[in-house]
Order: sequence, then structure tokens, then C-alpha cells
Amino acid sequence: MQGRLSRKATLLVGTAALLMLSANPALAKETGGKETSKGVTWEDIRNDQETTDDVVSWGMGPRNHRYSPLDQINRDNIKGMKAVWSFSFGDEKQRGQETQAIVHDGTIYVTASYSRVFALDAKSGKKKWSYTARLPEDIRPCCDVVNRGAAIYGDKVFFGTLDAAMVALNKDTGEVVWRKKFGDHTAGYTMTGAPTIIKDQKTGKVMLLHGNSGDEFGVIGKFYARDPDTGDEIWMRPMVEGHMGRLNGEESTPTGNPKAPSWPNNDDGTKVEAWNHGGGAPWQSATFDVKTNTIVVGTGNPAPWNTWYRSGKDGNWQDYDSLYTSGQIYLEPSTGEPVGFFQHTPNDAWDYSGNNPITLFEMEKDGKTIRAGAHADRNGFFFVTDLDKLTARDGKISKQVGGAIGIYPFVPDISWATGWDVANGRPNEVEGQRPPPPKPGEKKGEVIEVTPNFLGGTNWMPMSYNKETKLFYIPSNDWSEEYWTEPVTYKKGAAYLGQGFRIKRQFDTHVGVLRAMDPTNGEIVWEAKEPLPLWAGTLTTKGGLVITGTSDGYVKAFDAKNGEELWKFQTGSGIVSQPVTWEMDGVQYIGLASGYGGAVPLWGGDMADLTKQVSQGGSFWVFAVPNELASAEPAEEPKTSTQ
Amino acid sequence: MQGRLSRKATLLVGTAALLMLSANPALAKETGGKETSKGVTWEDIRNDQETTDDVVSWGMGPRNHRYSPLDQINRDNIKGMKAVWSFSFGDEKQRGQETQAIVHDGTIYVTASYSRVFALDAKSGKKKWSYTARLPEDIRPCCDVVNRGAAIYGDKVFFGTLDAAMVALNKDTGEVVWRKKFGDHTAGYTMTGAPTIIKDQKTGKVMLLHGNSGDEFGVIGKFYARDPDTGDEIWMRPMVEGHMGRLNGEESTPTGNPKAPSWPNNDDGTKVEAWNHGGGAPWQSATFDVKTNTIVVGTGNPAPWNTWYRSGKDGNWQDYDSLYTSGQIYLEPSTGEPVGFFQHTPNDAWDYSGNNPITLFEMEKDGKTIRAGAHADRNGFFFVTDLDKLTARDGKISKQVGGAIGIYPFVPDISWATGWDVANGRPNEVEGQRPPPPKPGEKKGEVIEVTPNFLGGTNWMPMSYNKETKLFYIPSNDWSEEYWTEPVTYKKGAAYLGQGFRIKRQFDTHVGVLRAMDPTNGEIVWEAKEPLPLWAGTLTTKGGLVITGTSDGYVKAFDAKNGEELWKFQTGSGIVSQPVTWEMDGVQYIGLASGYGGAVPLWGGDMADLTKQVSQGGSFWVFAVPNELASAEPAEEPKTSTQ
Repeated sequence: MQGRLSRKATLLVGTAALLMLSANPALAKETGGKETSKGVTWEDIRNDQETTDDVVSWGMGPRNHRYSPLDQINRDNIKGMKAVWSFSFGDEKQRGQETQAIVHDGTIYVTASYSRVFALDAKSGKKKWSYTARLPEDIRPCCDVVNRGAAIYGDKVFFGTLDAAMVALNKDTGEVVWRKKFGDHTAGYTMTGAPTIIKDQKTGKVMLLHGNSGDEFGVIGKFYARDPDTGDEIWMRPMVEGHMGRLNGEESTPTGNPKAPSWPNNDDGTKVEAWNHGGGAPWQSATFDVKTNTIVVGTGNPAPWNTWYRSGKDGNWQDYDSLYTSGQIYLEPSTGEPVGFFQHTPNDAWDYSGNNPITLFEMEKDGKTIRAGAHADRNGFFFVTDLDKLTARDGKISKQVGGAIGIYPFVPDISWATGWDVANGRPNEVEGQRPPPPKPGEKKGEVIEVTPNFLGGTNWMPMSYNKETKLFYIPSNDWSEEYWTEPVTYKKGAAYLGQGFRIKRQFDTHVGVLRAMDPTNGEIVWEAKEPLPLWAGTLTTKGGLVITGTSDGYVKAFDAKNGEELWKFQTGSGIVSQPVTWEMDGVQYIGLASGYGGAVPLWGGDMADLTKQVSQGGSFWVFAVPNELASAEPAEEPKTSTQ
Repeated sequence: MQGRLSRKATLLVGTAALLMLSANPALAKETGGKETSKGVTWEDIRNDQETTDDVVSWGMGPRNHRYSPLDQINRDNIKGMKAVWSFSFGDEKQRGQETQAIVHDGTIYVTASYSRVFALDAKSGKKKWSYTARLPEDIRPCCDVVNRGAAIYGDKVFFGTLDAAMVALNKDTGEVVWRKKFGDHTAGYTMTGAPTIIKDQKTGKVMLLHGNSGDEFGVIGKFYARDPDTGDEIWMRPMVEGHMGRLNGEESTPTGNPKAPSWPNNDDGTKVEAWNHGGGAPWQSATFDVKTNTIVVGTGNPAPWNTWYRSGKDGNWQDYDSLYTSGQIYLEPSTGEPVGFFQHTPNDAWDYSGNNPITLFEMEKDGKTIRAGAHADRNGFFFVTDLDKLTARDGKISKQVGGAIGIYPFVPDISWATGWDVANGRPNEVEGQRPPPPKPGEKKGEVIEVTPNFLGGTNWMPMSYNKETKLFYIPSNDWSEEYWTEPVTYKKGAAYLGQGFRIKRQFDTHVGVLRAMDPTNGEIVWEAKEPLPLWAGTLTTKGGLVITGTSDGYVKAFDAKNGEELWKFQTGSGIVSQPVTWEMDGVQYIGLASGYGGAVPLWGGDMADLTKQVSQGGSFWVFAVPNELASAEPAEEPKTSTQ
């Protein structure tokens, strides 16, 4: 049998391959030599939020609004929306599909679990090419084998792999143009986030930006700028205070104070172990403020989770903020130097991290237009920060004082802080909410209950901003946890937490809540509850819609104004991806991946049990409103699929 | 979680169903007692082809017409057909999904690859329960880990597993009621076919019928009748002439002549090795002629494939038919005794096998109504047999003489026979088409080219019969192969073929052809060509439609009269399953599985390469025409999914 199987595998080239081409619509469009389509320019990316015929950046524009000016599909006709086609990622590989698709020139580029990329014909769903990274056995993704999307620029598609490499593929053929390994995957370095293309407004240089993941294994969070043509590193910026950056292959500057006073010293004056493995990984995608030429990216939790390893004598955490973790950092594109930082959770004791993207927007308040950043944090607070202050080149990195405009709870019953001193940028922490150290002779600390839990009031899944309603649409969860400390010592490749936990249900009625937040006053304008955790991003449109997916498999559309559920469709596996929309030949489409996984089923305690009913999957779906299809193609009958 | 799932599974009726609609469908539906729904009766199964609200048998009725009297979806409105929901089988298990769904009382029972069963809410696609057989590592399925469907009777769902067991599950909970291991999977015994429920018209006893697979490993093909309540065997009938049957736990009668003259002897008068491992496995499903109380089932190829091991001295194959392989056998339900047999390929030298079901129908010919059986064989010929003659209890098993009404080619360029002597039931074989034995001193025989190849003019995928058009709709393939003999000795668990092969493309234009056959004269009334092999069953309806799926992922609908392609939808993975249709709350639905696999990608040579572009998958899909949905629920807006 084996013999026969390998005989089967012996022919792929020559006439066989030609036959394959002639029969395969996906491969047939040859132009004599190489298939070509127009390249993606920086202007395409910069204008992504205004243009409707493509989606060429994660977040649908450098400011991550995830808003489309398309209104062909709208609150009046969405009841008639139908599936147009689906594509299976295949390979007997499933797990979490957290991707956001890129759409360009009739092709959809979608990443999938296990570091895969598929190029699909946007009309028919036929595969043009696919790429599967050959992953080593000893990768250490903390929270499932997910990938959150690709970047595109020129003739290349870029994505990060679970073995901590960045790969550039020819967008027309899927061939590897370059691959850069940037971290030791056996130490926990990995990559799940989507890279970002920006253009340094000073030098005119286009750059590929990306970070790493791995805080749960005690990595040092690093952010990279690369030449998209060659993959060569331009600079690298570590996110732990005092660690040394790199520029053009040379040591550049330490991040902040080289003595790292926000991390304690040992008695001998050396830094504590935690500083050497301090986390802060920028594992999600950057946004970019073109006006001030500033990169903005969230930084991950400090390592270990256990606060006492990062605190001073007698449990003094107040003087040790674990910079520059669990906050939003602002970087100069030419050099990677930090120019601003606002911390969401000083000396984070709860793995709140701070990664999900900072959405840049204009806010009308008190008759003024304020350039602001908005960020919904795992710690349960919604941060509106002053973009001009945070990007100011004033020689000061920390902008806690004066950096925030408003900080509002977006989930109920936050237990770790009663609120914020907004002017000074400090939370009003509740005593006893830091999991206490083990008592003498005990192996674990007292169990305390904390809300929200470390999976967060929200997590990685990006919110969207609708400039018509002026509301943010946050995929949030109401849940709590039991938390306790445990001793930990760094060991390469092993979990570096020092904390145990059990995720718990908070309300009988629901876990997930889609919330509409008014950034001017922190008001929750509406909410829509879900029985299972929400783990998908949101998309909002001029059509007055909010689109998202649910863990029990539905794509859903809500009225952006009042949260009314207008439409849903069951895709068969949980949805934890990011919807996008685009227009093609006069028809508006909505696309997203279905496939359940991510952190919840792995770490979610009661909530993981709750989601055991959900089938794994791995597929991409495209939807449209058929009547519109018909009116757009008046000469033909309404079509549900086109080849 | 099991607790939750089984709690979930406990209610389906009354207020519980309402709760399910209003809150979390997965968790809310409790009534305090056990979920119950009405049991399936023999009358339900017998009338399956007339009733529209359920599909309670493989083949949509004991005669396997795969015809539905539903016409709500029809050739005029099918252009508007849309996906209603999809369900992912999950588990990081994909490969071929060849299943036919059972639909009963609001639940869809669908089997999946790797011996899995899912019970789904027919309205919403929500999982009610699932069962996954724990398979040993050393199973030996020749042609992918497929399953072709379940049977249902009373409160139980029955299906066969790859480790050669039959399992009965409670249809409301998925709990195992009984499991019967019937073969040694390490010797190649396995099961992929759907079992069949019949009622012995003589005794009134309802029986569960099933066969086994494994001819490529030299098993003895056996057919079983069991008590559906207990799983206890009633009888077993082997398909190799002279092997001993069993009745009520005791030896009963040998199959045919105990001396097995259709298999050669060694010089010492013992039977040749091949006879001990002679194949003939009835690996597909039986049909049932209620009028004469006769089971009809196809038998598999003889083992080994190599004809010379089953021929007499000097290569005399003419006198050795390898009974009762590669034919259609007729059995008495009370005892399992053979009452008739018609062989499709005497002394089959090409692995043509003969398994796909014999469809029982009435044919008007020369002003008379003839009760007939129709069978499209892998060998390229379409057999119309005389049902009354083949079921006659006349003491003769072989009905070659006079058993056939018409035998017609349904694929072009059949090379192994020019046609048939219908009256005598013998093919006009072409000399030199049996792969010759190796010449002295050589290890393999001369390579010859044969059409069709062993994957067949058609294969397992069942055709359908439309009593309005009076046509059969055959999923067929045009392809050939290179064939040569090799020496072989039986070794338990090893392939027992004695033949090598390489599947080849026959035409540049196509491989698959959906063909409409007029059984009265063998005319191909229309054909629709496909670039890739066809490997899905067909369904036909009073709405004038033929529904099937393609290896490149489309569900397609054709005009039953002329073959015009009316509609298609891309499901994202290849379709190799069997569509069904049913009505629920006044709405007609069509359902089938998507997920590419089966024999072609494993054995198909050039054709396997051709299908490498196809993603694996594993999902069930339901379709309907939304306008009809709307008109059926006039008080509500058109809905695309209902919870």
C-alpha cells in the first residue's frame, strides 16, 4: 500500500501539471509568464479606511477603525444576506482561526492556524496558492496555534510564524521571497500577530513592523522594523526598561532608563531575575499616526505574572511599575526610540497585559476636536489618551501625568481598582486584590477572587470605531477568576507565571457582551449579550451595522445605533476571527474565518467546559445580499456563486 | 462537560424546545426527564420514498431511488437557493466525507470520517450529541477513513466502524446501546457502508443488515443479519462459493456448491490459496424487494485481483467464475440463503467489484411493466436485471442465463469487453485485456492499458432514479489505467492484489461525467462533464432536479430532463457525499456533507495529482430557497437561519 502511495506521489510535473492547470480555474490565468497583479502601495495602505475595493492592512487602515464607508449592505437589507462561498483550510488542521483577511485586486489573502496562508480568488473562493510553514515540534504558543493576519506591500505578503520567523511570500505565486527567524522558539518566542506596513514620513522609507509573543515563557518583548524588500532588520526595540535596542545592526539605546528603576534590584545591586525575562511582548499589531510620524503599539504583561518577584522589599510594588509592560508605547519610526508611554496596569499582578490595538481617532469634546487614542484593556477599563501629548517629542517617555483624557470601566464589578486618577494616570487600586504571596511554609498563596480575569474584559479581539455613530464596538466578556501565587524560577522554555488561576462564570445569564462605548463620557450606549465568550473582532460600516462572530458559530449583524440583532448565520464552528468588507464589481461582500480555538478552550476553566460543545473548524466565508448582486448584474439572473 | 452535554441532550419537545429558541440553544433545554422523540418504524422506512418529512434509510427508501416527491425547490426557483446553515465535524479530523444523512423528527443524523456520528438540530445545525469510535491504530481501510451513513430504527441509530464493529446508539442521547465486533481489523476487515433495516415479510422480524469491507487484504466477504435490539447475529452469509454460512449461532449451509467448482483446486485436490481469502465483500448497502421478500446486495471483487491465481491450468479462467464475487446476490431474509445471483464480471481480473447498490424499479418495455433491478458497474456496463427471475425460489442460484434484460455501456471506449451476450449473461471479452502473468524470469507482467480503470466507470457513489423522467442519473468517470500482474502470496494484514496499476487520464476535456441513462434502451440522454472526478451520489426530485456535488467543492443542481446546470454553490472542500432532501414546517431543505477524500486522492495516479488542489474538509450543509421560506412563514421576515 505504501509503495502504491508513493508511486502516486511520484508525478506532479510535466504533462500532469499542465493538465492540472487547464482544468483548474484558479491557476489558469497565466499571462505567458508569471501571473501578475498590481502591487500594493503605501498610499493604498494609508487610504485603506477610505477605499472600498480593497482591505490592505490589519485594522482596515493605519488607525484600526475597522470601519467601511460601504453601505450597500445596510440595516434595511441585511436580513437578506446570504453565504456566497466558503473555503476549507483543510489539512486535518483546525483549532483557532483568528485571522483578518487582506483583499487586493480580486484576491483574498487569509492566514490560518498552524502558520498557513491561503490566496483565494475573491469571486469564486478557489485557491490560487497556499503556503504552510514547516513548524518544528517544539514550538511554544501559549494560547493556541493561531495567526491573526498578514500584511501586504508591493508584490509581497508578509506573515509571522509560530516558530518566531517573519516570512515574505510573492503575492502572485506564494513562493518564499525571504524568511527571517527572529527568536528562539524553544525559549517561548513565537508570533501570532499581524505585521504592519508604515512609511516613515521623515525618511520616506517603507517599513515592515512586527513584534513577538511569549510573555508566559519569560521572553523579552521586542518590536522590529524591517526592510520589506529584503527582510533585513532596521531596528529592534525591547520593551523591558533598561534593555538595549538595536539600529542598523548595532546597539542603539536602552529602552528608557538604563538602570531600570521600575524593576527592583537584588541586594548585590544587580537586577532581579524577572528583569532578565521581563515580558512586555508587543504581540499585536501597531497603529500609525501619520501626522506626527509615530508608531503606537500595546505592550504585554510583565513576567512572571507574580507581582512579588517584580516588587521591592516588604512587597513594595508601588515604586516598581515594571516598565514598559502592560501599556501603550509610542515609537519614532526612523530609530525605534520610545517617545511616549502610558501604562494601563502599573506593576500588573493579573496578566492584564495591554496589547490590543490603540485605535486613533478624533473626538469632539467640549467643543474641541481632540486627536485621541482609544484602547479597551483586559483590565476592564477603556482608555482615551491624548494622541498629541503621547506623541510629543518632549524628552519624556512616561506620559502617565496628563496623558489620559478619560478612563472608564466597560465591564461591571471590576474588583482590582475602583477607578482612576485620570490626571495623574494612576489606578485607585483595591487593597488585597494582588494575589498574596504564600504564607511561610505554604506552597501557594491564599486564593482570592478577581474581576475581570486574566482573559480580560476584552482580549486580543479588536474593537471597531464608527465615525457616524461616534461609538466604539467592543467585544467584551464578563467573567472572574480565582487567583493565587506560587513560587517560580525561570527555566528556559517552561511557563514563567508564579501564579495559578481558575476562570469562573460571573453571571448565569451570559459571558460575552458586545458593548457600544461612547468615548466622550464612557457611557455604554447599548449591549448585546451572548451565552458563550466573545472572541471575535468587530467591523462597523456606514450601512449602520456592526458585524462580529460568536463562539457558538454565528456571524451576526447588529444595528450600530441600538444593538438590535438584525441577522445571523450559522457557520458550523465557533468564530474568533475579524470580519472585513469590500466591494467588487459593484457588489459589497463581507468575509471572515470560522474555526473555534484560541485561549478560552485552553485556559478558560468553566468557560472552556462551556465551549466544549463547539466543533473545531477552519474555513473562510464570504457573504453578500443577493438582491444587490442582481441589481449590480442586471443582465443576468441573481447569482449565488460565480466562478 | 459531559454532564452539560447530556443535560443539553435531554430535551427536544414541548416547552424545552421553546426555551432552546429563546436562550442558549446548547444549554437551556431541560425538562427534568429524558429527551424523547417518536421512534422509527418499519413502515416509516418502507414508505421512505413517498414521505417527505423524513429520510430514514440509506437510498431514501428500500429500493434506493434517491428520489423525492418534493417540488417546492424546482427548476424554476433553484437559482435562488441559499445556504441555511453549516456544521463543522471538527476534531482536527478531515478526509473523505461520503455520508448520507438520516433525517427524523427534527434531527439530522450524519456520520463522518474516522467513524463518527453527529446528531444535529435540523433547524439550527446545533449539535445535540456526537459519538466518536475509539479506533485502534492498526485499522486497514483500503480507501480512506470514510463512512457512508447510518441506519435508524426504533430509538436507535446504527453504524459501522473502521475496526469492523457495528454500533447501536440511542438516537436521543448518543449513548452506546450495544456494540458488536464482527471481524479482525488486523486482517483487513473493516466497515464503511451504511447498514440497512428490513422486515422479513415471512416472520415479521425486523433485521439490521450489513456487510464488511477488506477485499484488498484478502478477507472473506460476509453479510450479516442482526437483531436491532440486541445486536445479536441472526445469520451470516459468506460470499465465496463453498464457504459455510451461519444461522442462529450454528453452521447453516455453504454458499452454493460446497466444492466451489468456480475456484480451482491444487494438484492435491485442495482449494487454491485464493479461495481461502477470496473477497467478494458486500461493502455497500442492500436494497430490499418487499414483494418477494428478498434482500439484494452487490458483492465485491475476488481476491487477489490477479486473475491467474483464480484460474485453472494453462490460464483457464473461462471455467472459473470466482463465485459469488463481483455480482449481485439475492438472499432469503429468514435464513440468509442465496436465492439468486447475477455476475457483472465473471472471474474479475480488474478489481471491477460489483458493489454499488441495485436499484429496484418498474420499467415499461414493449407495453409491459417489468420489475427490474438497475446497477451501474465499475466495469462500465449498466445492468438491467429481471427482478422476478432473480428472486425466484427455483433452486438455482446462478441466473446468468435469462437474468438480464439489457446490458449497456455507460462510459466510452470500454476495452475489456465489446458487449454482452445478454441472453446467456456472458460478456464478450476482448482477448489480451486480462493483465498477462510475468514471463519466465520476470517480476512483473507486461503492462497493458485497460478502460475503465479499477476506480470504475462509476464507483460506490449511488445513482438515482426519477420516476417522472424515467431516467437514472449516474455519477460516472472517464479514465483508464496501466495494469500489470505481480506475484503475490497471502500474508495476513498485507495487501493481497498481485497486480500493479497506474490510473491515467482518458480525455483532456474532463474526467467526471454526470450521465442520464434510459434503462429501456441504454441511451445516454444527456451528460454533464466535470474537470475533476465525480465521487458524490445523486439525488433527484419531482421538482425536475438532479442534485450532486463535485470534487472541486460545488453543490450543483441540474435540470433532470436535459442536464442544464441550473445552480451551484462552493462549499470550500470537495464533495463526495450523498445529498438528501426533506420538508420541515412547510419548507423543503437539501442537505449534504462537504469534505474531500475517498479512493481517488489515495489511488488515483494522475487523478490524485489533479485533486491535490482540493482542500480537505468536514462539514454538513443545509440549503433552501429563501422565498419559499418566507412564504412558508408569512408572519415573519425571510429568515436565513433559525435557532
